Order: sequence, then structure tokens, then C-alpha cells
Amino acid sequence: MDRVSTIVEQILQGEVRAAARLMRDLDDGIPEAREVLKQLYRHSGRAHIIGITGSPGVGKSTLTDRLIQYLRQEGRTVGVVAVDPTSPFSGGAILGDRIRMQRHALDEGVFIRSLATRGHFGGLTASARAVITVLDAMGKDYILVETVGVGQDEVEIAATAYTTMVVTVPGLGDDIQAIKAGILEVADLLVVNKADREGASRTYQDLLQMLDLQSIRKNNAWRPKVFMTQAKEDQGIQELLAGVREHRDYLMKNQGEALLAARYQRVRQEFLELLKEGVFRELVARITDSGLLEEILQEIVAKRTDPYSASEYLVKKVLSF
Amino acid sequence: MDRVSTIVEQILQGEVRAAARLMRDLDDGIPEAREVLKQLYRHSGRAHIIGITGSPGVGKSTLTDRLIQYLRQEGRTVGVVAVDPTSPFSGGAILGDRIRMQRHALDEGVFIRSLATRGHFGGLTASARAVITVLDAMGKDYILVETVGVGQDEVEIAATAYTTMVVTVPGLGDDIQAIKAGILEVADLLVVNKADREGASRTYQDLLQMLDLQSIRKNNAWRPKVFMTQAKEDQGIQELLAGVREHRDYLMKNQGEALLAARYQRVRQEFLELLKEGVFRELVARITDSGLLEEILQEIVAKRTDPYSASEYLVKKVLSF
Repeated sequence: MDRVSTIVEQILQGEVRAAARLMRDLDDGIPEAREVLKQLYRHSGRAHIIGITGSPGVGKSTLTDRLIQYLRQEGRTVGVVAVDPTSPFSGGAILGDRIRMQRHALDEGVFIRSLATRGHFGGLTASARAVITVLDAMGKDYILVETVGVGQDEVEIAATAYTTMVVTVPGLGDDIQAIKAGILEVADLLVVNKADREGASRTYQDLLQMLDLQSIRKNNAWRPKVFMTQAKEDQGIQELLAGVREHRDYLMKNQGEALLAARYQRVRQEFLELLKEGVFRELVARITDSGLLEEILQEIVAKRTDPYSASEYLVKKVLSF
Repeated sequence: MDRVSTIVEQILQGEVRAAARLMRDLDDGIPEAREVLKQLYRHSGRAHIIGITGSPGVGKSTLTDRLIQYLRQEGRTVGVVAVDPTSPFSGGAILGDRIRMQRHALDEGVFIRSLATRGHFGGLTASARAVITVLDAMGKDYILVETVGVGQDEVEIAATAYTTMVVTVPGLGDDIQAIKAGILEVADLLVVNKADREGASRTYQDLLQMLDLQSIRKNNAWRPKVFMTQAKEDQGIQELLAGVREHRDYLMKNQGEALLAARYQRVRQEFLELLKEGVFRELVARITDSGLLEEILQEIVAKRTDPYSASEYLVKKVLSF
């Protein structure tokens, strides 16, 4: 068996060290790792992917921590991808949170990978997807993807999960209004965390009302549900997980019609992102080597052309078919 | 004079309504607006662009508000681009902040544009750059670009300013460590805001120490400076602005050698971003029309290929030269 096949076999067996090494190699842009990823792809598609997003400080990591705990109690295996610079999973946050996370570190049924910056692989989204594919091929039952809902990339990553949770807290006030446009429309489940705080039921009601007003939905057949939790105090998690299952059941109805549609969307986005990075990388390599890039830049700097015209010209020139 | 030339003329005269309309049209992807932008480009390059970035809640908007105030007192005109969903400039934040902002709304010397989501123009970065070009062509002396330092895009936008400020507050603790890697290395000036809080001098010292340790710099000749401010109480702003000028003077030394280098970097990044969006858009349009995209997606869904192999195949096929 060649090296690539050996690594593929190890990953499919769920070997933690092989997976960790592969993810590192993918980040470093090692070609062999990419070959492994290609072969793993056909073994992916079984895990249920849950996106968890929201502003910094709403308690996404504590919630993630609790979800791991409950899923493990049911005997499910869990993969975690943290794309959040404020997450303790990614090395951020205060000491107490980090210690809380530690309890999963020695659990063989949990694999946590944090992505703080772009690796060689391409964008942050591409890196996250690659990690999800590996975790999926490893046989993880659930994959939790924690992202901070501020950057566009981060929201997109969460939105490509099968079930997307948007987390908020009481008293963010106008902030909810501000983020609504970008984030609420990707939510399958809405979570009001720290629900012991003043104004929790008000926030709950506000969210329900927004859902009533909301017309543009990624899937009109599912009406998002709102949950109240206190992740730190271990309150409301079971109800939230029941909500995840309800959404999953919805996806599975009619021979999994909605799930197939969601999968198709995931595949479409993943392919287009890879294409975008791939075509750009190859194009830049070629125009750098040929000196064309330098020539164009000098023209722009000298104001003999502008970047808009120059890029339009080049696009027409290089796309041949 | 044709319509495009008329609009160009209006923008160069600094007409606020024409500028607002143009920015809207650019977002909506109106071809005429793009033609205007092309012609404006050669009139840009005079404004001093200042990037202001940092985590949510550190007071970036209040600081921006103060900088506007001081620059206006000196008779400078100011453009503001807010790419920050938590900024009151963009409609976020609490009522008090918003009221504070209002005082600049009627000042003809200040033009504020917020970018909450991607427009038709391409990425968020492309939209921000287009707005900066328009403000620059309008003749604004200073352009302040406020972004939340969480998403990669947002950090990149701030990093392409001539002078980049990274704002923090005392007591963020490990968070500073967490964001350090991505953000500190783009900083020309570091600001400890809310400097009346406990631990301010400790944070100040920590930052100085980090700067000592830091070896990778976008420009080794400039050593970043650290400032203490209390934006709300109007403390330390003058010193900070003196820091901006010192950095500007540094850029202008030796016939503006460092400034030219910074401009070249800006042009390079801007062109490459436009190229990336442009080539991708055109490519997707063509493979959608020809049915090739659908064909490939069906192959991936059926697991007869994987997105990595399929994108590599297509990249080779379409790039002709």
C-alpha cells in the first residue's frame, strides 16, 4: 500500500494522530495531504454538521462545551472546528473557560481543531471545509463548527452547516438589529443564552417577532425555533439538542429531500470556493512568472490605466474557452 | 458632456449627493458607476488613509468620532468608511453613541459611508476600496477606515491604510495574546483606550514588550508607537494625532520612498483582488451557461469525483495562455 492509501486507511479507522498530522500538512500545503483529502471525500457525508455562530461574549464556547458533554453522554462521537479568535478552543478567552474545555482533551471520542488564521490551503472557509471532511471521514457522528458571527467568511462557514444555531444574549439591544440582516437569515435555531439575565423574555419575544417578519429564508419550509439556555449553569441544553434533532428529522423527511438539497448546496459552494482559489492562484503564478503582473502594476501606478480596466482586460485575455 | 463625465466632474467638485448616489450605484452593480470609478481613479492618491481596527467594544467609534472632531478643528476634510457591524456609524451600538455621531451629520466637510454587507461590487474589501477611491477623488484630506478586527477581510482592509491603528483596552487579558498574531503585525500605532481603567499601564507595558519581541513587520524601519487615550473623555487624542503625523512624516522621508512603497503595495493588492473577483465571476457565468457546472456538481454529488480534483481539472482547462 502506498503512503497516501495508508494515511487514508488510518483516518477512516479514526486514528487521532494521523488526523492531526494530516490537518497540519493540509495547512502547510503538502501535496500528498491534498491527495489524501481527495480520497477521503467519498467517505464523507455521514456526519451531522452543526454551525454555532454569534457575537463575541455570548457564550458560544460554553454552549459548544455543553453540547459535546451531552452528545458524549449519549455515546456519540464529536468533532469540533473552532474558527473564532475569541474562543477558548482556539486559545482565546479567559483562564476559567480554558480549564473547562480541558475535560474533553483526553476523551478519544472528541477531536477539536482550531483555525485561527488562513493556512496555505486557501481561504479560511476552504481550511474549515477540509477539516470538516477529515472529521467526517473519521466517522464522527456530529461536527460542531464554532465561528464568531462578525466577519463575512465566518458567517458563511456557519451557514453551510446542516443545522445552524445563532446565539445571542439579553441586552445586546440594537446590536441584534444590526446583525440581523446578515446572520438571522442563516439561522435554523436561535439561542438566547445567559437567559437568567434581565430582559431575556423580551429578547425571546423580539426574536419570535423578527421571525414573523422575516420573509427571505434559505428554506421556507422550516420555521426557525428559539431556545433559552444558561450554558454555564447547564440549563436548557437538552431542549436545544431536541431542537437539533427536530431540525434533522425535518431534513430527513420525504426520503431526505431537504437534506439532499442542503448537501447539493454545500457541494456547490465548496466547489466554487475551491475553483475561485485555484484559478486565482494559477493565474497569479503565471502572470508573475511572465512579468505581465509587474507591467500592469507599473501602468496603474503611473495612472496610465486603473485597476478596474486592467483587471477587465486581463480576465478577457486569459479565459480561453 | 456625457453622463459619466458629468458625474466625474461633480465628484471632483466634492458634491455630496453625487457621491452618495455613486456609492449606491456601485453597490447595485450599475455599469455606468463602474465607468465613473475608472475615471476617478487617476484623481485619487492624495488623501491620507488611516485604518482603525480592534475588537468590538474597545471604543473604535468613539475614537473615530474624536479624530473627526480634531481634524475638523484644523480645517481638514474627512471621509469615513465604517466596515464594522458593531459601529454606530454602521447603525449598530447603543443609542448614546449614535447621538454622539449625529453632530457630524450636518457638517459638509465630513462624509460617512457604512458598509455592512457585500454589495454587488464583489467582496467587502473591493467595496471598501471603491468607497475610499471616491472619497479620495472628492478631495478629502483624511479618510478614516473603521473595521472590527475579527474577520480576516476586516483586518486586511485596515492593513491597506497608510497608517494603521490597532485599538485595545486594559483587561482584555488573554485576548490580546489571541489576536496578536493576526493584528499586531499590521499596526503602525497602538492605542490603549479607556486608559482610566485598572491595568492600563500594565497593558501599555505588555504592548511595548510585545513590540520588542516582534520581528516580522510589514516595514522594519518604523517602530510602532503606543498611545493611551480616553476617547469618551477627550483625553490623549491630540497626542495620538501627533503620532499619525509622525508616521506620515516617516512615510514622506527621502522623497516619500516609504509612501511610494506603501502605495505600490496598495495598488498590487487592489488589482489582485479585482482580478480574483473578475476572473471568478466570468468563469462561473460561462460554466453555468454551458451546463458544465451542473455536470461537474452531479459528478461530485454521486462521489464519482471530489471537489478538489474537479476544480484542479477545470483550472487547467480554462486558463489558456
